[in-house]
Amino acid sequence: MTTIFALSSGAVPAGVAVFRLSGSKALEIAGQIVESPPKPRMASLRYLKDPRNGDVIDQVLILTFPGPSSFTGEDCVELHCHGGRAVVSAVIELLSSFEDCRLAEAGEFSRRAFENGKMDLMEVEGLADLIHAETDQQRRQAIRQASGHHREQLGSWRDTLLYGRSMIEAELDFADEEDVPGSVSDVIWPKISALKSEMEQHLSQARSGERVREGLQVVLVGHPNAGKSSLLNWFAKRDVAIVTEEAGTTRDLLEVHLDIEGYPVVLVDTAGLRDAENLVEKEGIRRALDRSRVADLLIEIVDSSQTVDRVVVESEADRLVLFNKEDRVGSERNLSNLKEGSFSVSIKHETGMQDFYDSFVKHIEKSFMGAENVLITQKRQADALALCVDYVEKALIYSDLPIEIRSEFLRMAGEELGKITGQIDVEEMLGVIFSQFCVGK
Amino acid sequence: MTTIFALSSGAVPAGVAVFRLSGSKALEIAGQIVESPPKPRMASLRYLKDPRNGDVIDQVLILTFPGPSSFTGEDCVELHCHGGRAVVSAVIELLSSFEDCRLAEAGEFSRRAFENGKMDLMEVEGLADLIHAETDQQRRQAIRQASGHHREQLGSWRDTLLYGRSMIEAELDFADEEDVPGSVSDVIWPKISALKSEMEQHLSQARSGERVREGLQVVLVGHPNAGKSSLLNWFAKRDVAIVTEEAGTTRDLLEVHLDIEGYPVVLVDTAGLRDAENLVEKEGIRRALDRSRVADLLIEIVDSSQTVDRVVVESEADRLVLFNKEDRVGSERNLSNLKEGSFSVSIKHETGMQDFYDSFVKHIEKSFMGAENVLITQKRQADALALCVDYVEKALIYSDLPIEIRSEFLRMAGEELGKITGQIDVEEMLGVIFSQFCVGK
Repeated sequence: MTTIFALSSGAVPAGVAVFRLSGSKALEIAGQIVESPPKPRMASLRYLKDPRNGDVIDQVLILTFPGPSSFTGEDCVELHCHGGRAVVSAVIELLSSFEDCRLAEAGEFSRRAFENGKMDLMEVEGLADLIHAETDQQRRQAIRQASGHHREQLGSWRDTLLYGRSMIEAELDFADEEDVPGSVSDVIWPKISALKSEMEQHLSQARSGERVREGLQVVLVGHPNAGKSSLLNWFAKRDVAIVTEEAGTTRDLLEVHLDIEGYPVVLVDTAGLRDAENLVEKEGIRRALDRSRVADLLIEIVDSSQTVDRVVVESEADRLVLFNKEDRVGSERNLSNLKEGSFSVSIKHETGMQDFYDSFVKHIEKSFMGAENVLITQKRQADALALCVDYVEKALIYSDLPIEIRSEFLRMAGEELGKITGQIDVEEMLGVIFSQFCVGK
Repeated sequence: MTTIFALSSGAVPAGVAVFRLSGSKALEIAGQIVESPPKPRMASLRYLKDPRNGDVIDQVLILTFPGPSSFTGEDCVELHCHGGRAVVSAVIELLSSFEDCRLAEAGEFSRRAFENGKMDLMEVEGLADLIHAETDQQRRQAIRQASGHHREQLGSWRDTLLYGRSMIEAELDFADEEDVPGSVSDVIWPKISALKSEMEQHLSQARSGERVREGLQVVLVGHPNAGKSSLLNWFAKRDVAIVTEEAGTTRDLLEVHLDIEGYPVVLVDTAGLRDAENLVEKEGIRRALDRSRVADLLIEIVDSSQTVDRVVVESEADRLVLFNKEDRVGSERNLSNLKEGSFSVSIKHETGMQDFYDSFVKHIEKSFMGAENVLITQKRQADALALCVDYVEKALIYSDLPIEIRSEFLRMAGEELGKITGQIDVEEMLGVIFSQFCVGK
């Protein structure tokens, strides 16, 4: 396979720039660009030389990782160069000059690792998440997944499905022989049913995993000029890391990504809600309401100097209410309106805000509860698991169908499970069959 | 000494982030954040754990480089983490949590390397240049300097100065003894004089070294609207890498940094030259003329459809002249005005431009000739060498002064030389004295 290389470290200029090579010619190339490449995995200082003219390009640390015990499973080489623009260009030019060696495409190293069985799909996805993790919770979830935390769980589900199928196959194949244990159905269906419950349990937590990846959706609602922008600024002033500030998916919703005590939070500012005449404003309000409907948490801001009326927003999410501008009316009037989750504050004068913040953090923590051990973190994985559960359910409920068809449902369930990690081999079933029965006779 | 650490690789997110630790506690910290740190210089995969709570932070490649055979000369550790923002923050937080361990200041690793005698000042400067090198020539010069290419040359100059001084000291100390060879002056002054010539030779090439670092200064001059901006655009269109485009030191001079065939070139666009009334324009023209005076090369652009008059610019630099807009007058008229270094062109229609470019490149190559082996590349180094030559000259010409004073001039010369590499030790002279004479008696 073509040898690929890439600058794996960040943007230059920097102190060090790390180049990775992977492929059948990686070690051969190493032997041509440095004198006497070091022993495997041994970091050694060498002059990096252009074999075409003997020019010294840089002084580098070189490491070799012969396959299969490397990241990609292929022979790998790392060059740690000085991170200057000209050095990096020269190294790219040098490596490109070798036949059958080219710049890697995005993700190509991981792809090879997957193809060579060094990582499964979930680990690959975990790795991608790890590199894009912006908060501590995201990092924790991603490193768990990248380290194969799911392997045991998914493996045991797979085993149960395979076990079910092999029992059925055995019943079919050896139906007239005496050493196949009684009716398989009695044995396997309760186990398959328990499996279904367990998978459903994990599926129900998947939203929590997605939430960690994508951030808790907190939507700000309220009448115009109630103080939504002031609240955004207040968050910014608290030195909450505003990771990115970009236009939302729809032009009128501003999303601010916050890192609140390690939890990823997407704060969505919406158009002020009122009876609008203007078409554009109407559209903005429609979007605000749409977004509120799918929010994980609402923060409503009321200008208590004008009104104590609440806005009407359809949403099942919890809601925190800030009766703002208490400095104009006195907190006494507001306090009479306070229920749990309501706060009399002045965002401008920063009064009453600590109570709100503490409650806000508690809500966030609650939303992420259990996320520590969540298995399924992405829609792709959840979709496959849902299909798997679907097939298992069919195998369970269609008890009047021929057993071959119910077995086929289990096979399809297993295939969906296999899609989660990217392992879909039909061969392994034979092994299970042969180990369970004394076929040797 | 305090243990320091830094993210040595480029901006995250990236595939890999390299952290370096250096200091007496580096290995001890390594032992606390990974289980069983690997053998020196051996890259090993480990879980990076927070010893405060056992949390897995990342899966990393760890390398240890026990001092003194490390970059800084101290115990060093490298952690190659996944290059996500959250991972990098977590690692910084983790390392900062150790007592007597802190984020390094800019250049602190190199400073320690210098203080521990792993690099001299010129190598440190070469290293900094290497990281900031933007063209191939800059990289070549920097890697030569960072690899200690100057050591032999400077060492031999230093030896000659020391030899001269020790001979003088010997004459003074042992003047009445018979085994000191005759009059030292006869022996040393011709050598010192030869040394002076050699140093002057290198000093005269220093401008070439600085040119590689800072780029050849090419100034565009001409009447207003002659086509200077078109020429800039033409360079851009040729896919010459425009490295940076920023306002010059003075507001009215636009500097464009180009990489022309590996050579760094700073193209300076100036205000069009004419009899200006306006004060601001007058000032712009004054600056254009000032800059032309210190240019390495001038490119003058003449709107040949208006005039064939040349602008008056005082400068000793070579000048290339473009008679532009030949499409309006026909190249015949322009050709009658052509001398060497003049070209009839239409920048807009790209006619005649190849000849100009070839000549331009030749001029650039000429300017950088000999830069391959230049020793002195920075003003700081050149200043020290100039002072050194100065003292040597004084020692040579004040032949009627007492020999002690001439020796003192040589000592001061040596000190200036020492400043170039940062080595100023007064002790080493004794060694020379004792090795030259049979003082043992």
